[in-house]
Amino acid sequence: MRAVRFRFPGGPETLRVEELDDPVPGAGDVLIDVAAAGLNRADALQRRGRYNLPPGASDIFGMEVSGRIAGLGPDVTGFRIGDEVVALLASGGYASLVAVPAGQVLPVPSGIGLLEAAGIPEVAATLVSNVVMTGSFREGETVLIHGATGGIGTFGIQLVKALGGRVAVTASTSEKLAAARALGADVVINYTSENFAEVLDGIGGADIVLDTVAGPYLDRNLRALAPFGRIVTIGMQGGAEGTLDFAKLMKKKASVHGTLLRDRPPWQKAEIMNRTRDLVWPLIETGAITITTDTVFALSDVASAHAYFDSGNHVGKMILDCSR
Amino acid sequence: MRAVRFRFPGGPETLRVEELDDPVPGAGDVLIDVAAAGLNRADALQRRGRYNLPPGASDIFGMEVSGRIAGLGPDVTGFRIGDEVVALLASGGYASLVAVPAGQVLPVPSGIGLLEAAGIPEVAATLVSNVVMTGSFREGETVLIHGATGGIGTFGIQLVKALGGRVAVTASTSEKLAAARALGADVVINYTSENFAEVLDGIGGADIVLDTVAGPYLDRNLRALAPFGRIVTIGMQGGAEGTLDFAKLMKKKASVHGTLLRDRPPWQKAEIMNRTRDLVWPLIETGAITITTDTVFALSDVASAHAYFDSGNHVGKMILDCSR
Repeated sequence: MRAVRFRFPGGPETLRVEELDDPVPGAGDVLIDVAAAGLNRADALQRRGRYNLPPGASDIFGMEVSGRIAGLGPDVTGFRIGDEVVALLASGGYASLVAVPAGQVLPVPSGIGLLEAAGIPEVAATLVSNVVMTGSFREGETVLIHGATGGIGTFGIQLVKALGGRVAVTASTSEKLAAARALGADVVINYTSENFAEVLDGIGGADIVLDTVAGPYLDRNLRALAPFGRIVTIGMQGGAEGTLDFAKLMKKKASVHGTLLRDRPPWQKAEIMNRTRDLVWPLIETGAITITTDTVFALSDVASAHAYFDSGNHVGKMILDCSR
Repeated sequence: MRAVRFRFPGGPETLRVEELDDPVPGAGDVLIDVAAAGLNRADALQRRGRYNLPPGASDIFGMEVSGRIAGLGPDVTGFRIGDEVVALLASGGYASLVAVPAGQVLPVPSGIGLLEAAGIPEVAATLVSNVVMTGSFREGETVLIHGATGGIGTFGIQLVKALGGRVAVTASTSEKLAAARALGADVVINYTSENFAEVLDGIGGADIVLDTVAGPYLDRNLRALAPFGRIVTIGMQGGAEGTLDFAKLMKKKASVHGTLLRDRPPWQKAEIMNRTRDLVWPLIETGAITITTDTVFALSDVASAHAYFDSGNHVGKMILDCSR
C-alpha cells in the first residue's frame, strides 16, 4: 500500500509517500480501504517532531479516515465488506489501507460524501469528549472556543448552537470572525485587539472554555469563566506551564481539565464514538451541522497540503484524497 | 444573647463574648438554641483577618452548631420546636442563638450527643461535597488527604473506608500518623521526611487528592495523581499561586478543582446537606464512622480554645459548649 511517513522532523517537504506492506487486521479490528484522510494540527506537530505518539502507534501519519470496509479481523460483528465508514485512529490514516479497532469505526452519516466525511471523526469526537463529557455541557451554557475557524471551531460553533448553547470564539482576523459569525457564533473576539477575558466577563462569563493554548492563557481563561466554569485544555500551542491562582479558582468553584483523545485505550474511544454517533450523527444528517471543508489535496501532494495548513489560512477541514 | 466577635484581627485574645440582640428567623429560617459550636480552621483565619466572609454573613464567629429548635420563621416545614438538630452556617455559631435556612439543618444522628454533634456538619458536608460530589468518588478509588488528624482527616479517613475506598494521609509526626492508622488509613506519610508524590506514584497514584495547601503542592499533587485523577483544593494554607504543568495534566487526563462551601447559596447548601444525610448519617448511626472529639471548651473560654487550635496538637474536632 501507499502510506505517508517522514524522513526526519521538519517542514512539509520532509513528508513522503512510500510503498509499505499492507496492514493485517487483528482480533476486533476492521481493515479499511481508505478513501480520504483528515488533516489535523497534531499531524503538523508530529511532522516537526513535537508530538509524542501513543505507545504502539505506527509512524504513518493520520488520525482519521473515511473509506470502505475491506476486511474483518476475528471477533468483529456489525460490519460487512464494502460498508462506507469513518474511523478515529491512533495513527496510520495517510495511507491506502488501515486496520483499526471496530469500536472506533462509525458508518458515514447519510447524505455526506466519502471525501468530506474523512474530516468528521476527530473534530466530532474531540467536541463530544471534551465539551459534552469532560466539560459536562448543559443546555443554555456559554462555551468559549479558542480558534474560530479550524476544524474544531467550525464544527464546535454549530454543535454548541444545535445543543442549545451560546458560543463565543476568538480569532486573529475579521475575515475569520465573519466566517465564525456566519456559522452561528454569538460573540466573536479579535484577540489581537480585544482582551477575551474582559469580553466574557462582561457577558456573564463562559461556563466552558475549550482551550488549545494552555500556559499563557490559563489566568485569562480563569478570568473569563463564569461561576462553576470548566476550562478544558486539549492543546498547548502557547506553552505547557501556567500560573494557577487558587484564590480565583476557589472563588468561582471552577476546574481546569487537561485531556488527550489520541492516547486513550480503545474501549474509551469506543465509548466516545458511541456517544458521538448518538449525539452528533443526527445533527449532521438533518443538516443542523454542515461539514466545512476547505480544500481536498491528493495524497501524493501531501507536502503542499501541510504547507497550506501551516499558513493557517484554511477555514474548516483539509482533506487528503487517498485514491490519488 | 451571648455571641463571640473580635475587636481587631489578631491572636486568640482578640476574641470576646458580647451581649447582642437575639436573631429573628426570616422566611424559610429556623431559630436554634445553640448547645455547641464546632471550631474550624476558617475561624482561626477569620480571627487573623485572613478570611473573606461571604456577602451578608454576620461577623459573629462560627460555621456549625448543634442545638434545639427554638423558633420557626414563615414557610418552614419539617421541624418542630425542641427538635435536636445540627446546622451548617454562613456565620454566627459561637452564640446562644442563631437563625439559619432550614435546608442547612439536619436532625442529630441517633446515638450522638448534642455536644459532639456540633462537630459533624462542616466536616461531613465538606467531604461529601468535595470527595463525593466534586471529586466523583467511586468505590475502590484511592483518596489522598493532606492533614491526617484534623476534623477533615479523622472523619474523611473513616468515610472513604466506609464507602469502599483506599485512604492515604499526610501528617508531620508519627503520633498523628499512628492516630490516622488507627482510624483506618491504609497509607500514612510523614511529609517532613517523605515525598508524598513518590509514595503515591509507587502505589498506583491517588484518584482524588483532597488538598488544603494549594500553590506549593500543585505540582506534587499532580505527580501523586493516577490517570484520570482529580485534585480538589479547598484551602490555601501554603499560598494561592502554583505552577500548573499542562503536559502532565493532559497526559493524566486529570483535573484541578477549587471549591468553597461557605459562600454557596442556601439552595446548594441544602442539596449538599441532603446528600450528606443520605450518605453519611447511616454510617454514623451504625458506628461505621465514629466522631473524634478532642476537647470541649466553654464558650466563655473561647480564647483558650483558639490558642489550643493554633497549636495544631488536637486530633479530631474541637467544640465550644455554648451553654457555659
